Amino acid sequence: MITYQIVIEGTIISSVSFDKADFTPEVLICVDQSGIIDRVISATDSDYQPVKQTAQQNGSYHRVEKGSYILPGFTDLHIHAPQWPQAGLALDKPLNEWLNSYTFPLEAKFKDKEYAEKIYYSLIKELLANGTTTGLFFGSIHNEANLILAKICAKLGQRAFIGKVAMDNPDQTPDYYRDQNSQVALKQTEAFIQKMFDLQKQTNAEITPVITPRFVPSCTEETLQGLGQLAKKYDLPIQSHCSESIWEDHYALEHYHLRDTEVLDKFGLLTDKSVMAHGTQLSDQDLDTFNSRKTAIAHCPISNIYFGNSVMRVQDAHQKNVKVGLGTDISGGFSPSLYRNMQQSIMSSQVLTEQGHENARISAANAFYLATVGGANALHIKSGQIKSGFKADLQIVQDQYFNISSNEPQEIFERLIYHTNKENIKKVYVSGKLVHDNLGEE
Amino acid sequence: MITYQIVIEGTIISSVSFDKADFTPEVLICVDQSGIIDRVISATDSDYQPVKQTAQQNGSYHRVEKGSYILPGFTDLHIHAPQWPQAGLALDKPLNEWLNSYTFPLEAKFKDKEYAEKIYYSLIKELLANGTTTGLFFGSIHNEANLILAKICAKLGQRAFIGKVAMDNPDQTPDYYRDQNSQVALKQTEAFIQKMFDLQKQTNAEITPVITPRFVPSCTEETLQGLGQLAKKYDLPIQSHCSESIWEDHYALEHYHLRDTEVLDKFGLLTDKSVMAHGTQLSDQDLDTFNSRKTAIAHCPISNIYFGNSVMRVQDAHQKNVKVGLGTDISGGFSPSLYRNMQQSIMSSQVLTEQGHENARISAANAFYLATVGGANALHIKSGQIKSGFKADLQIVQDQYFNISSNEPQEIFERLIYHTNKENIKKVYVSGKLVHDNLGEE
Ligand SMILES: [Zn+2]
Ligand SMILES: [Zn+2]
Repeated sequence: MITYQIVIEGTIISSVSFDKADFTPEVLICVDQSGIIDRVISATDSDYQPVKQTAQQNGSYHRVEKGSYILPGFTDLHIHAPQWPQAGLALDKPLNEWLNSYTFPLEAKFKDKEYAEKIYYSLIKELLANGTTTGLFFGSIHNEANLILAKICAKLGQRAFIGKVAMDNPDQTPDYYRDQNSQVALKQTEAFIQKMFDLQKQTNAEITPVITPRFVPSCTEETLQGLGQLAKKYDLPIQSHCSESIWEDHYALEHYHLRDTEVLDKFGLLTDKSVMAHGTQLSDQDLDTFNSRKTAIAHCPISNIYFGNSVMRVQDAHQKNVKVGLGTDISGGFSPSLYRNMQQSIMSSQVLTEQGHENARISAANAFYLATVGGANALHIKSGQIKSGFKADLQIVQDQYFNISSNEPQEIFERLIYHTNKENIKKVYVSGKLVHDNLGEE
Repeated sequence: MITYQIVIEGTIISSVSFDKADFTPEVLICVDQSGIIDRVISATDSDYQPVKQTAQQNGSYHRVEKGSYILPGFTDLHIHAPQWPQAGLALDKPLNEWLNSYTFPLEAKFKDKEYAEKIYYSLIKELLANGTTTGLFFGSIHNEANLILAKICAKLGQRAFIGKVAMDNPDQTPDYYRDQNSQVALKQTEAFIQKMFDLQKQTNAEITPVITPRFVPSCTEETLQGLGQLAKKYDLPIQSHCSESIWEDHYALEHYHLRDTEVLDKFGLLTDKSVMAHGTQLSDQDLDTFNSRKTAIAHCPISNIYFGNSVMRVQDAHQKNVKVGLGTDISGGFSPSLYRNMQQSIMSSQVLTEQGHENARISAANAFYLATVGGANALHIKSGQIKSGFKADLQIVQDQYFNISSNEPQEIFERLIYHTNKENIKKVYVSGKLVHDNLGEE
């Protein structure tokens, strides 16, 4: 019999499709030494008792308490790591002022390595505590700080996709926070890729470099072009913003006489490994382009309320087979919690129905799919579901209102989606490794 | 020197006006034996040290830790107590189905006193833990259960305004959950008032009966009329719903050829002690009526996303001098937290600006005012601010991100509004009495 790294006994809640979350009572989740789920054994299986006993004997057994459930970890597809200190601040300012008076000065501070160390440690701890097992991060322009972020992720067990932000357009970026020119932007990006590959080898951690043009306005044409080529050369993921706001949409039209989507596509930045944040202003034709390029959208519902000028059409994108996941957009979005963003995605879709998009509404099951399967698919990782062959990315979540209502699966599911705070997330595992333990309580 | 019940040393954050929250570092809040704030002594005052020392000697001194702040307790102006078990459930159903398939059957269960005891205890514990020091409650039609709610509030120290729900229109209420006729509705209401007066005398608790027609559609004309008279006879607060949704608005027009506001007004139900929930569909003329009657609106921003068909115009109401506070609307709104509702009120107002209401946006300071001063004014209680002569309704709240950013007052304030979960609320006092203690930690 295989010796498992960990064997968890409890009830699973996991997406089976965009429309349906499934409830599987009393199973054994058997995680092998590489952090992959080897088997999920149901109670009726004759192996159940022997595997459980062996695990109990060798200390790898963990029992989930009554009233707690095993959910897949979440993938957060859009995080600006250096903006963590201002989450929730100055949100009553217009985007321009917010960027120039608050955000750029803050990101510029990450030249200071000690500061980076302190903030990034706090952020990663927070994300893990919120059940986020994989994160797709914008760093800053500073490679030293970006590598500090990568090292902290490696150390704390956060699966991370990290980009050195490229931004060299002097018309749209401040003097004190800019890649000096296109050559610098590209050279620094390539240097970051190499350093990340080295760090991967040293630590064996699940960290991946990402090509990261901030967004079309902040980059020169040469940089967009060069980044597209680097993505191809190294076969790397790409992240940026696309049609976040009316302003961004208009910038592309004015400067390139093309839609934002078309500009990114022209430079080879829409691939099946690309994740574009927001997309609130995407046209049907843009969505078709996303579909044909197999590019994913990071839907950031909280951020979009403040800066998006409208709601991203999740149902339309899904109907067109465009990949969609969720992002917190720290700090355009104030909350580090994907639960909070699931709630907002449902509420925002409701607002969309009132604006004439009749079938725009998304359900709790849809939102859960985005946070788990959707995000994992966008990054091509076998995560987001709890079954054989998948990474053991798990969160043990307590239903805090277990005692006051019926415990039909659908009710439990909805309560977890609507009421989970980080304090209810008792344990979090990434690839079978315990990365967050809420005081050992359950 | 007076012997105080409790003397709290720390930093106050409290509204000074609709637009401004004030930050008062290092004061002594001195609460007298009746639970009223007698003095707020600043550090420069010569009494500071002597009062502090006396309090330390007699054990009434409490020091708020660094990184935690003293805020006024919140007033929640709209809670359906018997709906607590379904908070967050079935929110993807249309209002009609939600009421008939879920809500009415649930409320009908409160015929069972044991069930009522269990649910109401859980609810009041939860509200206190979320910093809500005063609640305005719809009970069910059952007086026994309503009195159980009142007794639990008295026991746990929740200041409570509670109504026996009156609903007797056979066309709009189910057979199994209805006052049998107008006479029953009025008689039961009056009986509840008497029982509440008795309970007040027995317990000295801050509990008040409230005249509570469910809403215009669910009551017969005789009942609306009779309830208006009862409110006058006993000089009591009144609560109901007004223009919650397009459907409710249309009902009044069809059945009375009047606007919802006009129907309520016609029956004497809009007084300076009335609090009407929602008001998403109120016209300018309706707002003028609210202003002239000095009637308050309970703005329930989360609930309105699901059932309101649009956003309540807080800024317009405020400009017209209409009193406005916040409500969770458990369980049309899923969250028992007024923090969560403050956040949503800001976000919803942002959506309103995108729909052509240019000056609709409300700030964090505005939202905080609604949850504190606005709610207290609606109910005519001296609460919601921390100053001499006010009830000592306080919450000690920890800024969980104290370490990662600057600690300018405005930043601390915004972090508290956007990031406070109930786990960060360390202690809650109602009229100087400690009603919630989060494990004694701070
Ligand atoms: Zn972003
Ligand atoms: Zn209501």
